[in-house]
Amino acid sequence: MALGRYLPILEWGRGYNRTVLTNDLVAAAIVTIMLIPQSLAYAMLAGLPPEIGLYASILPIIAYALFGTSRSLAVGPVAVISLMTLTAASAIAPPGSAEFIAAALVLAFISGALLILMGVLRLGFLANLLSHPVVSGFITASGLIIATSQLKSILGIKASGEAMPELLHTLFANLRHTNLPTVIIGITATAFLFWVRKGLKPLLIKLGLKPRVADLTAKAGPIAAVAISTLAVVMFDLEAAGVKVVGKIPQSLPPFTVPLFDPALWQRLAVPALLLSVIGFVESVSVAQTLAAKKRQRIDPNQELIGLGAANVAASFTGGYPVTGGFARSVVNFDAGAETPAAGAFTAAGIAIAALFLTPFLASLPIATLAATIIVAVLSLVDLGTLKHVWRYSKPDFAAMAATILVTLLAGVEPGVIAGVGLSLALFLWRASRPHAAIVGRVPETEHFRNVKRHKVFTDPRILTIRIDESLTYLNARWLEEFVLEQVAEHPQLRHLILMCSAVNGIDASALESVEAINHRLADGGVKLHLSEVKGPVMDALERSHLLHDLTGKVWLSQNAAFGALIAIADEEDAPKPNDDLWLARGLI
Amino acid sequence: MALGRYLPILEWGRGYNRTVLTNDLVAAAIVTIMLIPQSLAYAMLAGLPPEIGLYASILPIIAYALFGTSRSLAVGPVAVISLMTLTAASAIAPPGSAEFIAAALVLAFISGALLILMGVLRLGFLANLLSHPVVSGFITASGLIIATSQLKSILGIKASGEAMPELLHTLFANLRHTNLPTVIIGITATAFLFWVRKGLKPLLIKLGLKPRVADLTAKAGPIAAVAISTLAVVMFDLEAAGVKVVGKIPQSLPPFTVPLFDPALWQRLAVPALLLSVIGFVESVSVAQTLAAKKRQRIDPNQELIGLGAANVAASFTGGYPVTGGFARSVVNFDAGAETPAAGAFTAAGIAIAALFLTPFLASLPIATLAATIIVAVLSLVDLGTLKHVWRYSKPDFAAMAATILVTLLAGVEPGVIAGVGLSLALFLWRASRPHAAIVGRVPETEHFRNVKRHKVFTDPRILTIRIDESLTYLNARWLEEFVLEQVAEHPQLRHLILMCSAVNGIDASALESVEAINHRLADGGVKLHLSEVKGPVMDALERSHLLHDLTGKVWLSQNAAFGALIAIADEEDAPKPNDDLWLARGLI
Repeated sequence: MALGRYLPILEWGRGYNRTVLTNDLVAAAIVTIMLIPQSLAYAMLAGLPPEIGLYASILPIIAYALFGTSRSLAVGPVAVISLMTLTAASAIAPPGSAEFIAAALVLAFISGALLILMGVLRLGFLANLLSHPVVSGFITASGLIIATSQLKSILGIKASGEAMPELLHTLFANLRHTNLPTVIIGITATAFLFWVRKGLKPLLIKLGLKPRVADLTAKAGPIAAVAISTLAVVMFDLEAAGVKVVGKIPQSLPPFTVPLFDPALWQRLAVPALLLSVIGFVESVSVAQTLAAKKRQRIDPNQELIGLGAANVAASFTGGYPVTGGFARSVVNFDAGAETPAAGAFTAAGIAIAALFLTPFLASLPIATLAATIIVAVLSLVDLGTLKHVWRYSKPDFAAMAATILVTLLAGVEPGVIAGVGLSLALFLWRASRPHAAIVGRVPETEHFRNVKRHKVFTDPRILTIRIDESLTYLNARWLEEFVLEQVAEHPQLRHLILMCSAVNGIDASALESVEAINHRLADGGVKLHLSEVKGPVMDALERSHLLHDLTGKVWLSQNAAFGALIAIADEEDAPKPNDDLWLARGLI
Repeated sequence: MALGRYLPILEWGRGYNRTVLTNDLVAAAIVTIMLIPQSLAYAMLAGLPPEIGLYASILPIIAYALFGTSRSLAVGPVAVISLMTLTAASAIAPPGSAEFIAAALVLAFISGALLILMGVLRLGFLANLLSHPVVSGFITASGLIIATSQLKSILGIKASGEAMPELLHTLFANLRHTNLPTVIIGITATAFLFWVRKGLKPLLIKLGLKPRVADLTAKAGPIAAVAISTLAVVMFDLEAAGVKVVGKIPQSLPPFTVPLFDPALWQRLAVPALLLSVIGFVESVSVAQTLAAKKRQRIDPNQELIGLGAANVAASFTGGYPVTGGFARSVVNFDAGAETPAAGAFTAAGIAIAALFLTPFLASLPIATLAATIIVAVLSLVDLGTLKHVWRYSKPDFAAMAATILVTLLAGVEPGVIAGVGLSLALFLWRASRPHAAIVGRVPETEHFRNVKRHKVFTDPRILTIRIDESLTYLNARWLEEFVLEQVAEHPQLRHLILMCSAVNGIDASALESVEAINHRLADGGVKLHLSEVKGPVMDALERSHLLHDLTGKVWLSQNAAFGALIAIADEEDAPKPNDDLWLARGLI
């Protein structure tokens, strides 16, 4: 069982039979057809030779099938990760160069190693730092950058840059070099692919196909665009007219590669690799969870880290580049009826066959067609509607999302992610550092205590009760000191301060010291500190500290008991003493 | 009033009179006597010429007096900040060189600018990231490093390094160069100063002095050590015997200096400056708050940032180096009766007079005496007892503290602070990412719902209620999805899931999306999602979202109503239908 946790194949492998095999094979065939043009396109988006996209779609899929927990996730090159690879490796060497390809390999290896490490150390929770609005904003901005970057291939011109300003600048600067035949192919392919997306399925249904078959057939649209545009290039010799084509792709299985071990290079790629792997993980897990829920299956996020890590390490040893679970292809896989990760293995076999036998036919494939494939795929990632919803729902979340989009567009993917994560965390810590607390008083005729600002309650100027509505941690410890001392400064008649702890689930060492400091400072000012309604586990912890010994006041089980008893004590202190001069003078004693 | 907030002098200046003046003058005289040797010593600890310590004790004090909110805080060079300055500036140039002194100036300027910026932007809460155990561990480790580093001056040998391994290694390597006269002075001075600290006050009281006077007189001990050891050097010509002395100190007021504006240098010093200013701020504010509380005064932390920032900027323009509020001198200032920041200004005047007229007498002051001053001062910072208390109270806090101490000792002050802050934050985020939640059931014969694990409660296999005991944020959104889906996978008969939100104070955009995802995924599995006991403000926010529209179930005011109604619905669904074959066959319909 324990081994089964780390090798999920041991679980699903036992129930494998002929029906499942058939389903997996059908799904694999459909996904393979979809993946061939996508793999080539994304590799070129990442600044790599197209065959690297195919290589990254073979062994990584098998590695994920062995270690991953999703039964439907399809792993391979994806748009956003390809853009991040381009950005990271461009900092090392110009795209397409041997050093660039080596950097992409190293990037895959470090990402894989980091993912596996995070999985083994159960650090999946760190992915939480990427809030939904930040991820959504990042994907939207990346989609816009990718779509813009592909305009160069549609227009047949040169352009470069990892963020909008440089990209737009170089695009406009080269606009006069636009190649007409390329534009015709590019625009036709784009229009065709958009139509395939929206119009083909209804047409096929009208022609009598069942909805599910029509849907899956429509997914083969890109391969049709590839075939037709390649044919057009060959027939009309468009290469001579300036249409850029993919060119000769080696006919081979993935080569065995060893990622370069160069500490200086590793250091430069460590942060990009971390960002890339966490973004990939977050995207992949959310796809996997969505699909698993449909069949009431479970995804183990920490094991997913290991699965995706294994896939990336596999990519780095077989001439690939960073990969993760893709949304569109996983949905196709699921819809096509994939039942186990074996479907992934069959897809890998399909791509391997393509790499061996299909590549000669791809030499004349126009790059504009691949660009069209990318544009159509990434524009579905752009989601500005969420920005509006988030604005209406939560301003801090909107700030984080808007910052992520703007910084990504203007400065690139890495600053974008860092800005989003940083701002989210800062806003969270800011809120965590000022929890809700209320001065409470007794609701007349009851034992209940409520906020003095919201209810008509009974209070006493000599006794102040502060109810704290959150656990006390180092983030709000200083706030607690300031808040309490401010309240004390505002109540000159004060003699007893009660901290009502009914909502305090924990007090960490910093907050404990702050409570101790409050206790001492109040003592200096002649005020006693009391606690009321302390929860059991909190009390257990306090008993291991000095606080209970040093406390100038008492710990009261109930707030009502505390309030009543302290009023009585204060009344007694205020009562005339036998030696009170005034009373003596009045002859009352 | 608004101006008074930024210039507190406008507040206390109005009530200034002759009594206050006298009190302030007395306090200033005592603090001045204490500060002269300390300023020289800490400047040398920071690798700077001794007069820089005096310069850093003049204008910065006046700047703080203008902008700070504490009435007793004494600002100037302190041990830990001097060590951090040494570390940061050593990365730029060798200690004592002109570039090193220039780097210290720049460090003071950047620190000051950062503090002012944080104050204006109300970012004081960022100091919360330094938890008590981390600060305590850091101070302890710094104290040990400083004390060890001063052994070289006590022994009259050379040693260098900012962390223990290098420090100990160079100390041992040079041990054979030990200078006997220096050792005699060093050990005598150290022993004398320890005795002054522990034994002088009781002796003075025995001799008839009042305790408070005895206490303050004892504070002048270091100046006696300075005078006697200087005299010894002059009388016995110990310089010729190899005793190192302070040497000629220029007789001058602080020079006007302009911090170098060099972007590359600023970039290298930015992180050290940030760490240094935050550490200085945290230390200073806690001293100021302790003293203010004794008189029921208030400290405004954001204004303190501005006050300390102004002090550091002042230091950078008057040939100084980074400063902050010191613990020992502030307590002396307070005990000596300082009533307003004017006492600080008088201290500044005292130090200025010393810089002008006293420096010639300090030329023969042995460095070993200053080292003894430092050792005695910093050993009181070393507090290993806290480590034991924290261990007993909280293991995560202990881990953060131990990591801070170890990393500081082994790798230096900057890695130490970063390790402590990083580990504290990681542990906090880890805890925040897995809040408490419970499956609850109805306590029989009541309307209360309690944890099924702790109470005998009534449940129904078709209906599951999960009570969430924390606000839902992006940090625990994914946990929520996983937890809920796991529970659903474990309850195959489930038809209705209720999220009981009685303790949920907020739902951010990420958590909202997770609840929406849960809603959709449960729908795919045929389970309806309900919410119960949603608080008013949370409900207001949800009404601005799509959730209420998409929710497959309902929002129930009370958990009890939800549970009752859903059981009735499930019973109705399970009731035999007229066309139920089995019942027909049995002839029951």
